[in-house]
Amino acid sequence: MATTPNYTAQILLLQQEMDQMKSDFSENDNAFFLCSMALIIFLMQCGFAFLEAGAVRSKNTTNILIKNLLDSCIAIIGYWALGWALAFGDCPNDVIGLFMGYSQFFLANFVNYPKFFFQYVFAATSATIVSGAVAERCEFANYITYCSVISTIVYPILTHWGWHPKGWMSLGISAGFIKTTYDDFAGSGVVHLCGGSISLLAAWIIGPRIGKFVEDEDEESDEILGHSVPFAALGGFILMFGFLAFNGGSMADIVKPGEGHIVALAMVNTILSGAFAALTFLVIHFLYHGKWTLLLTINACLTGMVASCAGCNKMEPWACTWVGIGAGLIYMGLSKWALKMKIDDPLDAFAVHAGGGFWGLTSVAVIGHNGVVYAIASAIGGASDGGNQIAQAFAQLGWQWVCALAIITWSYLWMLPIFAFLKKIGKLRVPEEVEINGLDIFKHGESAYPLHAYGHGWHDFEKAPSSSTHHKHLPVGKKRQSVYPEMSLEHLASVYERSGSVGQSDSGPKRLFMNHNERRKSRMIDFDLYNESGPKNTRKSSEEKEKTSETEHETMWM
Amino acid sequence: MATTPNYTAQILLLQQEMDQMKSDFSENDNAFFLCSMALIIFLMQCGFAFLEAGAVRSKNTTNILIKNLLDSCIAIIGYWALGWALAFGDCPNDVIGLFMGYSQFFLANFVNYPKFFFQYVFAATSATIVSGAVAERCEFANYITYCSVISTIVYPILTHWGWHPKGWMSLGISAGFIKTTYDDFAGSGVVHLCGGSISLLAAWIIGPRIGKFVEDEDEESDEILGHSVPFAALGGFILMFGFLAFNGGSMADIVKPGEGHIVALAMVNTILSGAFAALTFLVIHFLYHGKWTLLLTINACLTGMVASCAGCNKMEPWACTWVGIGAGLIYMGLSKWALKMKIDDPLDAFAVHAGGGFWGLTSVAVIGHNGVVYAIASAIGGASDGGNQIAQAFAQLGWQWVCALAIITWSYLWMLPIFAFLKKIGKLRVPEEVEINGLDIFKHGESAYPLHAYGHGWHDFEKAPSSSTHHKHLPVGKKRQSVYPEMSLEHLASVYERSGSVGQSDSGPKRLFMNHNERRKSRMIDFDLYNESGPKNTRKSSEEKEKTSETEHETMWM
Amino acid sequence: MATTPNYTAQILLLQQEMDQMKSDFSENDNAFFLCSMALIIFLMQCGFAFLEAGAVRSKNTTNILIKNLLDSCIAIIGYWALGWALAFGDCPNDVIGLFMGYSQFFLANFVNYPKFFFQYVFAATSATIVSGAVAERCEFANYITYCSVISTIVYPILTHWGWHPKGWMSLGISAGFIKTTYDDFAGSGVVHLCGGSISLLAAWIIGPRIGKFVEDEDEESDEILGHSVPFAALGGFILMFGFLAFNGGSMADIVKPGEGHIVALAMVNTILSGAFAALTFLVIHFLYHGKWTLLLTINACLTGMVASCAGCNKMEPWACTWVGIGAGLIYMGLSKWALKMKIDDPLDAFAVHAGGGFWGLTSVAVIGHNGVVYAIASAIGGASDGGNQIAQAFAQLGWQWVCALAIITWSYLWMLPIFAFLKKIGKLRVPEEVEINGLDIFKHGESAYPLHAYGHGWHDFEKAPSSSTHHKHLPVGKKRQSVYPEMSLEHLASVYERSGSVGQSDSGPKRLFMNHNERRKSRMIDFDLYNESGPKNTRKSSEEKEKTSETEHETMWM
Repeated sequence: MATTPNYTAQILLLQQEMDQMKSDFSENDNAFFLCSMALIIFLMQCGFAFLEAGAVRSKNTTNILIKNLLDSCIAIIGYWALGWALAFGDCPNDVIGLFMGYSQFFLANFVNYPKFFFQYVFAATSATIVSGAVAERCEFANYITYCSVISTIVYPILTHWGWHPKGWMSLGISAGFIKTTYDDFAGSGVVHLCGGSISLLAAWIIGPRIGKFVEDEDEESDEILGHSVPFAALGGFILMFGFLAFNGGSMADIVKPGEGHIVALAMVNTILSGAFAALTFLVIHFLYHGKWTLLLTINACLTGMVASCAGCNKMEPWACTWVGIGAGLIYMGLSKWALKMKIDDPLDAFAVHAGGGFWGLTSVAVIGHNGVVYAIASAIGGASDGGNQIAQAFAQLGWQWVCALAIITWSYLWMLPIFAFLKKIGKLRVPEEVEINGLDIFKHGESAYPLHAYGHGWHDFEKAPSSSTHHKHLPVGKKRQSVYPEMSLEHLASVYERSGSVGQSDSGPKRLFMNHNERRKSRMIDFDLYNESGPKNTRKSSEEKEKTSETEHETMWM
Repeated sequence: MATTPNYTAQILLLQQEMDQMKSDFSENDNAFFLCSMALIIFLMQCGFAFLEAGAVRSKNTTNILIKNLLDSCIAIIGYWALGWALAFGDCPNDVIGLFMGYSQFFLANFVNYPKFFFQYVFAATSATIVSGAVAERCEFANYITYCSVISTIVYPILTHWGWHPKGWMSLGISAGFIKTTYDDFAGSGVVHLCGGSISLLAAWIIGPRIGKFVEDEDEESDEILGHSVPFAALGGFILMFGFLAFNGGSMADIVKPGEGHIVALAMVNTILSGAFAALTFLVIHFLYHGKWTLLLTINACLTGMVASCAGCNKMEPWACTWVGIGAGLIYMGLSKWALKMKIDDPLDAFAVHAGGGFWGLTSVAVIGHNGVVYAIASAIGGASDGGNQIAQAFAQLGWQWVCALAIITWSYLWMLPIFAFLKKIGKLRVPEEVEINGLDIFKHGESAYPLHAYGHGWHDFEKAPSSSTHHKHLPVGKKRQSVYPEMSLEHLASVYERSGSVGQSDSGPKRLFMNHNERRKSRMIDFDLYNESGPKNTRKSSEEKEKTSETEHETMWM
Repeated sequence: MATTPNYTAQILLLQQEMDQMKSDFSENDNAFFLCSMALIIFLMQCGFAFLEAGAVRSKNTTNILIKNLLDSCIAIIGYWALGWALAFGDCPNDVIGLFMGYSQFFLANFVNYPKFFFQYVFAATSATIVSGAVAERCEFANYITYCSVISTIVYPILTHWGWHPKGWMSLGISAGFIKTTYDDFAGSGVVHLCGGSISLLAAWIIGPRIGKFVEDEDEESDEILGHSVPFAALGGFILMFGFLAFNGGSMADIVKPGEGHIVALAMVNTILSGAFAALTFLVIHFLYHGKWTLLLTINACLTGMVASCAGCNKMEPWACTWVGIGAGLIYMGLSKWALKMKIDDPLDAFAVHAGGGFWGLTSVAVIGHNGVVYAIASAIGGASDGGNQIAQAFAQLGWQWVCALAIITWSYLWMLPIFAFLKKIGKLRVPEEVEINGLDIFKHGESAYPLHAYGHGWHDFEKAPSSSTHHKHLPVGKKRQSVYPEMSLEHLASVYERSGSVGQSDSGPKRLFMNHNERRKSRMIDFDLYNESGPKNTRKSSEEKEKTSETEHETMWM
């Protein structure tokens, strides 16, 4: 009998040990999960950067890239200093707590770094959406300002409303059998609708790029093409990759039973929704235009993924196919609407993020579990509480729309005065001359593809490597190579210089003096540069020409 | 004594709690593992896209990118609707079950989303391999068809054969002491041999690109170069990254004892095999050609990684070095063989995936544990059952080859009729004119690098930013910059226009009318465009010239 | 009473089962953690490749890409054969064990593959740093040599010193109350200071690129621009992504209590330090130069991340902001110093990695917990052992510097003779002609952007797709498209040819014979190519011209 008490202690010890183990593993597994998903979401900055870089002209490439780089940098500082505190800081006062947190500024007395890191990458994403809408004309000061404000104040407080258990949107209304809450798993609303709405506002206030819309009403809107489809595609691929982590990672926990499956379901729904959006758009576009567009298909795919954010954790895959189809159509509609309204949104940030985001918030209440469709089907099926179900479903849908409206209103409440102020002080948009000539060199001193860097090279592929006597062993391709030596862009550089001196003699000075409108329309560089030496050049002797062309060379580069 | 019964209950409770905990953690850890590996494998689509984009000419870049984007989209839909059901759906009937599953279509009554997501990214990879082999000439309809069929039917059924416990290849033969099974950890056979074999078939049926092989027997095969080595390298890096997850992730489970180490071993073997393949190829290539080729080294490296798929989970690293060396040689041989057979496979998809895949299936039975080499060594060492071991090892090798043959046969059984049918209805290959002029603009309406987007810019770097009075503080680079201002491709755009007007006056109309063969050979654009205004341009006065050049401008762009 | 013994056995069994479970989960979780972090760190090779590719001229792009590809390949072979054994192999002899391990060569009798894989990607990173410093002029043999030596010998032994519990740096000194150790969580010292120091040495011995520094003392150093800002940015983004895994993953364990939080803290500190470094540099640069530089900001950000390596696991975020600010300043200073010393380090590998690394080692002993600042604050606060704390803190700082010195000395001890020997046998640097004309074609036979690949294309966007009758349905952009059809670089190719024949007639032969210095300065290609047919071309009739231009065509390509 003396040993019996031991059992109690032993079992208790075992229980404690197990609880400790469970707690340790849970904490570490969750941290690992959050960190690795956050890492991939962090890479979405790279995705946005290249989607946008591919969609702008070469003269604004450095500009858009640095914006996306600084997004990460500004957002971490802002979210560390204020953002986290406003979003998830403790809020003992329940009334204030409905709207914002107010502690843990600068992460004082803070330990939950995995959650912080995860929330930071979301904040950075929210801010980065806007840069696409104002691309190619946005002042750097404007960019710094809106990026700071969004990632530090606007977005964090929205997440408090929607994702903090004490937030007013999250609490929702409870009236009788009706109970609503804010249903937005991965941020269709607080991330994308917020970013997308601000994009529309920003694009509208800042105005279209020069040359985007012609004044003549008869003419159609002009297409300003991006300079690199591959870069846009690279960005699109990285964003798709990132979205899977964005939506799957929003589980934010991977230790409770079934959570792993939800993560995977979220990812499957995300790609499924994106695929249906992409194919829906692509097929319709092909039927109307006869072209299989890549760039717009990427946008449609992203819209589908944005729309899936809200309900990807609990929708059935079949339901997500409808989310995708709807997203494809909405993207198409809003994109055309923006053009019609003469709002120049180079990346379709509004259509993709606001359209997808709003559709996400709506669709989860319509075709998600317990949504309108289920409720009606249940009522048709003769459920005893069919009416209540329908009422509840519509109430939830209504609440989603109230929240959507609140998100838009809150965003505009902050950004409208800011943009208006910046416009007043002339820091909203770059001067016309800068816009025409591109922001890269004026603002950043860095041309994306400096001509210098394309030069030299072997003229004759075969002659040069005289040491490689092995060539005769394997003659495959040898003869051809000598006929078509490998040449590269380096030669284009030489073309520039030579045709510079040539062009003048033939084109004559007058042709170069196109009026400003023509220049703007043709979107070619003006040739004033060549006027100085050009005309003189035409009737000179060979020796003189030689000298002139040197002078001209000086002129050109000086 | 009254307390004693409690112990039993307590211990039972503890046991249950522990079992539950174990089960929960296992499920979640596996889900997390599968999802994160699947994410990285998903990114391989981006890798393939850029490997291929870099290897095609600029005029077909958008085309190859959209193919790879749609791979992901089509595969998720096909695999969701049918693929999964055929591969891993329940199959109560044991005979049918040898060959395919037949339930859980559209994921009805389905929960194992992590496994589905993981299997989907494999299916997408399998389909995407082919696009490299038919690049630059494949009809969009052809692409949509084969991509759907492979990811929905061909590949899923192969995985049922090889990876479902009831599949006939997996069951293998049992006769006396001999017991064979299909030994293919990560899909050397079902993924890569399948994709690679179809690539050969497709490349053969569709025929070589115009200009790839000259008719004159004396001349060597012509080299059609890809337009961007950096893009190809980007794709290669991403694929290497993806392959590590592809092979490591194939463990598909990370909770049983030792599984984590196997995952890491698989990754180490993969990179080791890739490295030996790359260096073997590179050194031999250098000895023969005197050049350190990057593009082919990437391919060789990938071949090594493909070959390591089959046995990377159980081979010793030293054995994997031989897998790599063999892969390097096989890639070299098959790549040359395809050229000799006048099969134009721009990405060497056949050599890389079929060659590497077949060598993987073989090598695991030869130099893997219990393989031929081990058996012979054991017999030489005097093992009592040495003969049996050898018989077993060769039987296993034989079974691997039977499976390889079955994979190829099955693939061809589907794809040969499909390709033949598409050829008959003229939907296999684009018309000649489209091929010569590139698929991007005709098919997609999107030039990869639209000239418009390269324009404007500051002529004089120094003058423009007059506001920056700080320049004098740090004069580093100032003087130079004024002599060589940063200029960019934008100027090349202007070159185009000016030399357009110039070119005509000098070149004359006749030069522009090269016959078709010449044009094809030189692979330069035809100049018909400039004929209209060119000749008239030559003898006009300055004013007339001005006008003409405007007319010409219209002509050019119209 | 008969049942009582059962409890003991049952509890024991339960205990064993739990211990087993804990052990299994721990092992697998750690393996998973190490593998996934290692995967992302592996991708840093891609990041380095593109950061460097963007920073070199187009003629050396293939060269720099293959270097980074081979880094991964050479490092895995070297680290497998020797590196691991020297770094972490068993070392029964305690004296030898202070300096190196000496077992498990070729991973014989080895099981800890997760740790091996993780350490390998670090070794590869260490070697890859140098390639930036010697870019555009390094002999392939030199590269192969230093890469092998660093990843196989130099770096592994350093990690033994610093990270093996028996290593002399790790053991540190113990004297009275003073106890020092080597405090470097993720390799500020052994990875970055090592790689960065060797970069300086290599850049110094190999000498500046031709044209980088002018001989005339009055002129400022010349800027040699990289050919692609987007590629550099891509590399930067991938490196930032990788650094988060690099620093977070250095925990190398994620099962003990609190480790998950440390991983997240390390990531937060890394991005925070990088952000402060980037913004500090950017603002100062803007104040001095009036430009918001992207490329240098990326470098500054990376310097901040390098500096955070040493202490990111235990610093408070506020402290890491100072690490970042310091890193931004140090990068600025060292980068200018290298230029002043006429050391040509195209990627600023020295400033980023050695500067950041040294500052990391220092800062962790200054502003980390128990660092100099804390000790002084504590002494000011009147701590009873304030003096001891200060002594301990300074001793630790001293030891960090001793270790830094040891790292540099060890690195130079190996690399100085190697570089000197290679210089003697002429394998350090490519011949002048090769350097001027670029390494890509001579060394690799692969031009990064072969002109061939840019050709053909539709002249008239509208006419070609005559089948697409749908155009009239959606006329948006139609008219414009006909005015500005999508054109692409393909036309630039034609420009080349035409202006080739034109250029000669106008420019005359003399202009083409620039002397060598001029050519070098202007960094334009020489035009000798066009001399052969050029002069003859000028005074011929139209028919003759036609013939000549064909001849010339032959000449050009032959």
